Amino acid sequence: PCLGWLCCIESYQKIGQPLPVNIRFVFEGMEESGSVGLPELVKSLAVPNGYLDPKKIDFCCISDNYFLGKTKPCVTHGLRGNCYFHLTIESSSKDLHSGVIGGSVHEGMIDLVHLMAKLVDSHGNILIPGINNSVRKVTPEEMEVYEKMDFNLAAYQEDAGVNGISDKLLYKTKAEILMHRWRFPTCTIHGVEGAFDGVGSKTVIPRKVIGKFSLRIVPDQTPDEIEGLVRAYLDQEWKKLNSPNRYHLKMAKGSLPWICEPTSPNFLAAKNAVVRVHGIEPDLTREGGSIPITLTFQECTESDVVLLPIGACDDMAHSQNEKIDRRNYLNGMKLFAAYLVELSKLGQKDLSVAQAATNSTAKRIKSWRRRCRKDQTRFGCECLECQ
Amino acid sequence: PCLGWLCCIESYQKIGQPLPVNIRFVFEGMEESGSVGLPELVKSLAVPNGYLDPKKIDFCCISDNYFLGKTKPCVTHGLRGNCYFHLTIESSSKDLHSGVIGGSVHEGMIDLVHLMAKLVDSHGNILIPGINNSVRKVTPEEMEVYEKMDFNLAAYQEDAGVNGISDKLLYKTKAEILMHRWRFPTCTIHGVEGAFDGVGSKTVIPRKVIGKFSLRIVPDQTPDEIEGLVRAYLDQEWKKLNSPNRYHLKMAKGSLPWICEPTSPNFLAAKNAVVRVHGIEPDLTREGGSIPITLTFQECTESDVVLLPIGACDDMAHSQNEKIDRRNYLNGMKLFAAYLVELSKLGQKDLSVAQAATNSTAKRIKSWRRRCRKDQTRFGCECLECQ
Repeated sequence: PCLGWLCCIESYQKIGQPLPVNIRFVFEGMEESGSVGLPELVKSLAVPNGYLDPKKIDFCCISDNYFLGKTKPCVTHGLRGNCYFHLTIESSSKDLHSGVIGGSVHEGMIDLVHLMAKLVDSHGNILIPGINNSVRKVTPEEMEVYEKMDFNLAAYQEDAGVNGISDKLLYKTKAEILMHRWRFPTCTIHGVEGAFDGVGSKTVIPRKVIGKFSLRIVPDQTPDEIEGLVRAYLDQEWKKLNSPNRYHLKMAKGSLPWICEPTSPNFLAAKNAVVRVHGIEPDLTREGGSIPITLTFQECTESDVVLLPIGACDDMAHSQNEKIDRRNYLNGMKLFAAYLVELSKLGQKDLSVAQAATNSTAKRIKSWRRRCRKDQTRFGCECLECQ
Repeated sequence: PCLGWLCCIESYQKIGQPLPVNIRFVFEGMEESGSVGLPELVKSLAVPNGYLDPKKIDFCCISDNYFLGKTKPCVTHGLRGNCYFHLTIESSSKDLHSGVIGGSVHEGMIDLVHLMAKLVDSHGNILIPGINNSVRKVTPEEMEVYEKMDFNLAAYQEDAGVNGISDKLLYKTKAEILMHRWRFPTCTIHGVEGAFDGVGSKTVIPRKVIGKFSLRIVPDQTPDEIEGLVRAYLDQEWKKLNSPNRYHLKMAKGSLPWICEPTSPNFLAAKNAVVRVHGIEPDLTREGGSIPITLTFQECTESDVVLLPIGACDDMAHSQNEKIDRRNYLNGMKLFAAYLVELSKLGQKDLSVAQAATNSTAKRIKSWRRRCRKDQTRFGCECLECQ
């Protein structure tokens, strides 16, 4: 997509036409290495008379995600946040031999496995009390949208690699699968640090084990709320175990979910551009993952952000044989050009509408930042204020 | 201990006396590398007219374990066996992203954690039904022995590295701790292969995870009995989960516990030697670990085996700064010499007693071998017949 924007501008130059709107680019090619410093850079540029002076930025556009399927375009208005926990159980100052010592000490790995089994069941149900309290209710209008989406369950199941193994997804309908990827929280147990992780059969009693699990969170959940619920529940389950070992729970990362009104002028411009290039209405999607820089742009530039992908769901981001289909790339450049034209058609009234939408989102973010700052010693937050 | 035997023989040579008995040595310096080929070597030598011809071997002595404490000598007549399991859950053909896919697939790590939490509780109680059925009953005479042992609970707790952390052992009395290390089965969860095991926070849904756990088993448990109980229980717990993922349980290693009558002539010779050198009766101990070559010697040479250690409990076998105390080493050489003298005093009647004791143990081992052979495809057994 980076090159696509440049080709789009080159085309304007070649036909001798001025660009329809002013553009400020922030190119980013370090995502694979964690985009170290990017939020700080954006923040440092978003100052009066800076490159990203909020007064001069009306709209943001990020092209970093994917179509829901392989050809039908979409615009994206939501991301899930992520609360990643490290659950540590320490039982002794050194690794022990399960034959020589086994039967005489409290083994930390046993405690850890018991606690992690309390988090989520085999059918994806999160067992933490109150976890769904702040999840926005599903509306009938929302349900209608899922049904219309260009999303092939069979192809998705094939792409997820479960065929020939579990041969099943967690839910049977298109709407259920999309909602559980986008708008409901999920809990994944990723693994254990410090235990025996090699091939073969090592007879160790690990001295200290760190269970890694995370919850993807959705509007209107906030990381501090989730941290509180997880802590209260695990503290209580830990007490039930009545183990003398050392227990420590830390939220290593907490990021807000992102959602914005897809009726804002920025989204209308994006949608109109899709219709102009592809001849069809785009799907309105969310993402199950997190692109934290989205919130940073929204907050720093005080403007509406749209996610406008040009690649297919099987482009294999960050993976082996990452690709972009030629057709999608060519149409993507056209889409960028059309989007600029559509933006240029917006009037002062549209800008006011956009500002109102931004303010409403900003309010939510600010409220979270306040709580986050207040409580930042409790977990290693990565938000702008805490960095 | 290897060098100790040689120094002992050298002493006999230097004072011009013949050895009191004939000796056949099997020196082994490759334990750190798994003693590859040792059982096969012993087996190949234990043939008519071979170096270890069973007709020519009356007694075996292995000096490979440790005192219970730091100075008081012991002779050892029991070892626990080990049944090591690999529990595999496979959920997809590739690792998945917990943000993008999480909420739509059955995650194998969740199933695995649920199953492992069913094995043993935080207080060391094994939750597998029937697991204690074949454990020999504790006798009043046995209880008396534990009480007299040179075993300092406080020092043991310090050595186990739990001070300052859990600050507690699983049991409060000397007898309980010793029994749970030696004569009761235990279950340890060692770790997970295939899950995220690094530092930091990786948002992966692992495609295939292998839980590693093992049970130390004791007389009269056998690996095939334990394998049957574990399999029946986990199969049932797996069905309860109602997960579509792939489940596979394998006993990767199964070894018998070893126990022999400490009243046999070989043990009497060892005890008398201790009294002669140290001036005290040795403790009669068992080991919580497994020295599988013990059974191989017993079986191949058809003779009684005694474990006669000369080192202290804190010699740190296979670990950093392994050592042997000078005093223990010097006394150890004397002990070996005295043991040879004591053996030479045994008469034909003692040999018959020894043979009877050996036959009784051999019967048990043979019965296990038969079942093992019959069923060897079920797990990768390492016994002599299956190798």
